[in-house]
Amino acid sequence: MEGEPVSALFTPALVVDVDKVKRNAQRMRERCHKLGVQLRPHMKTHKTLECADIMTDGSRQCIVVSTLAEASFYADHGFDDILYAYCLPLDKVERCAALSERLDLFQVLLDHPDALEQLRKRPLKGSRQWHVWLKLDCGNGRAGVLHSEPGSLQLAQAIAEADGVELTGVYAHCGNTYNCRGVEQIQTVAQETTNLTLQFMDKLEAFGISCKSSIGSTPSCSHPVQDMGKLSEVHPGNYVFYDVQQSMIGSCSLDDVAVKVLTRVIGHCPHRNQLLVDCGWAGISLDGSGKLPTGYAVIEGHPNLKLLSMTQEHGRVEPTSGPLDYSKYPIGSLLTLIPYHSCATAMMHPVYYVHSEGCLLGKWTPTRGW
Amino acid sequence: MEGEPVSALFTPALVVDVDKVKRNAQRMRERCHKLGVQLRPHMKTHKTLECADIMTDGSRQCIVVSTLAEASFYADHGFDDILYAYCLPLDKVERCAALSERLDLFQVLLDHPDALEQLRKRPLKGSRQWHVWLKLDCGNGRAGVLHSEPGSLQLAQAIAEADGVELTGVYAHCGNTYNCRGVEQIQTVAQETTNLTLQFMDKLEAFGISCKSSIGSTPSCSHPVQDMGKLSEVHPGNYVFYDVQQSMIGSCSLDDVAVKVLTRVIGHCPHRNQLLVDCGWAGISLDGSGKLPTGYAVIEGHPNLKLLSMTQEHGRVEPTSGPLDYSKYPIGSLLTLIPYHSCATAMMHPVYYVHSEGCLLGKWTPTRGW
Repeated sequence: MEGEPVSALFTPALVVDVDKVKRNAQRMRERCHKLGVQLRPHMKTHKTLECADIMTDGSRQCIVVSTLAEASFYADHGFDDILYAYCLPLDKVERCAALSERLDLFQVLLDHPDALEQLRKRPLKGSRQWHVWLKLDCGNGRAGVLHSEPGSLQLAQAIAEADGVELTGVYAHCGNTYNCRGVEQIQTVAQETTNLTLQFMDKLEAFGISCKSSIGSTPSCSHPVQDMGKLSEVHPGNYVFYDVQQSMIGSCSLDDVAVKVLTRVIGHCPHRNQLLVDCGWAGISLDGSGKLPTGYAVIEGHPNLKLLSMTQEHGRVEPTSGPLDYSKYPIGSLLTLIPYHSCATAMMHPVYYVHSEGCLLGKWTPTRGW
Repeated sequence: MEGEPVSALFTPALVVDVDKVKRNAQRMRERCHKLGVQLRPHMKTHKTLECADIMTDGSRQCIVVSTLAEASFYADHGFDDILYAYCLPLDKVERCAALSERLDLFQVLLDHPDALEQLRKRPLKGSRQWHVWLKLDCGNGRAGVLHSEPGSLQLAQAIAEADGVELTGVYAHCGNTYNCRGVEQIQTVAQETTNLTLQFMDKLEAFGISCKSSIGSTPSCSHPVQDMGKLSEVHPGNYVFYDVQQSMIGSCSLDDVAVKVLTRVIGHCPHRNQLLVDCGWAGISLDGSGKLPTGYAVIEGHPNLKLLSMTQEHGRVEPTSGPLDYSKYPIGSLLTLIPYHSCATAMMHPVYYVHSEGCLLGKWTPTRGW
């Protein structure tokens, strides 16, 4: 396979442009360096060793993961300083303890006193401390104690004071940047999240507590505000691949998107002015709900085509207007789909095909499960 | 793990009730036996050896697959009489040839003269014939030559007359039964598809061509019409698991659904009257678009709860009305999600946990890719 063109792949196939991956990673590193903030890249989008090496510039240190399967996978391959940035699931305390006792620095996150109680009940061996981040909700509306609730400060204090536990940091995910359109809106949310996090840090200081702080999301870290330099860390992830959604938010240009799905025409349906491709939701996911003007994806080089609907292994493509010229799309011809949400698309593939300028270099195999 | 209760599993976890799987498989076999039609079960929903053994009653013969990866997987494990019921992708002709030359009976499907041309150009070794099904569209509106087009008969004739190629059968998928509500509507579509297929067979007979016929879909085969007994085969697949969608169509009762996703409460959000669970779209898929009264799934035993929205690893749950009583859902407590579409949910899991009456028996590992 190595050395062959991507067009030699069986379809559907997820292809990764390694030059764009490296460029996206490099730009994020430079941006963080300029800001003076530590980059802790998130692995959840790709879940591979190779891409983690690119994102950490070969250090294999200082990453975030979304599942304990990722944490174990990276730990097994020599990564350390891993933050499992997911509100500590009570069924997984023992697995977290094992990683904490095995790695130099394994860090967990929580937003509820019950989780803290579980950590207290499971002291780590060798006089090790649990490294705990408090998850703060600064307006994202998913996990985290609400920044404005008195309970958030009380929980931070309880973590700081608990035996065998260290309050390592305060962590806020500004996923609400995904509702933004354009840099100005992104930066408004980034500024708000930064302000609220820094205000929370000030309140902790007033109690004599000091620890790290981290915010993140690909939009906010692609267009950071100056005050993010006052934080300890940022933790974006999707930026290494980007996608159509990020280009619509304003995080990147469509040219920055590093993953595509190759598909082939497998049917002509002149009676419905459609053609069929061999990529269904099994190859690209249903993310985005088909609401793009071009449906479930952007079809590269064919702005007049729409990926209208999908079943498991079929995609229905129709022109955005007028009759389809089938001579342009013979049976077997290749089309390239730019995914709406690369995290969701990557999840559908057991292997990613990596290329440079269309020439295949090899395969990356992601980890899966929980 | 064996012998432990399903509640011992880390979540999210896909659990398969093997008794229901066996019951669903047995009922379909009996239904087909009574009709006098050969059951050729589809593997695309589960893609595992163990479930294929149950569906074929241990014979490892006479199956349908949706990908060539499935075909190879089953061939590698001693299955034969495999129908690759997917319009022959031109990039995969050589792989299909290899399977045709290796198995007693590997069958392909097509709906375009270009595909037939490719088969003619690649004669099989050892004077073997390509076994080819013609894909007919009887109103489903996906793949297949339209039954009413003169081209459909011409293509059937061309297959029958081509050197090194045998017209094995005519295959129609009545996926349009998925728009039905209730047995009467299902049977109307099943009758139409059967009539159109049998009329097509009559036209072929008039040309001196005789071959097999097959229609299928889980709704039509769960409530077959008598005339389906005049067909050679039927090819349903989802019935072995069923799901909420099938119960809404009328194919089954909710009690027949054999797969569930176990999830745990990982957060309380009283400020938005929600709780968080550890199943996001990575654990159940976005299929169904959240349009059920209970959102993206049915939460077993909690008709008052709605799986409102999901991100990759988080699900937001809220009551359908009134305030949430958090004392009923402590952090760490288990909830059971009944999936909207089991094909899509199963695709998200690298392993399925199999139980009988809640007691774990082992794991099934599906094949993936293309």
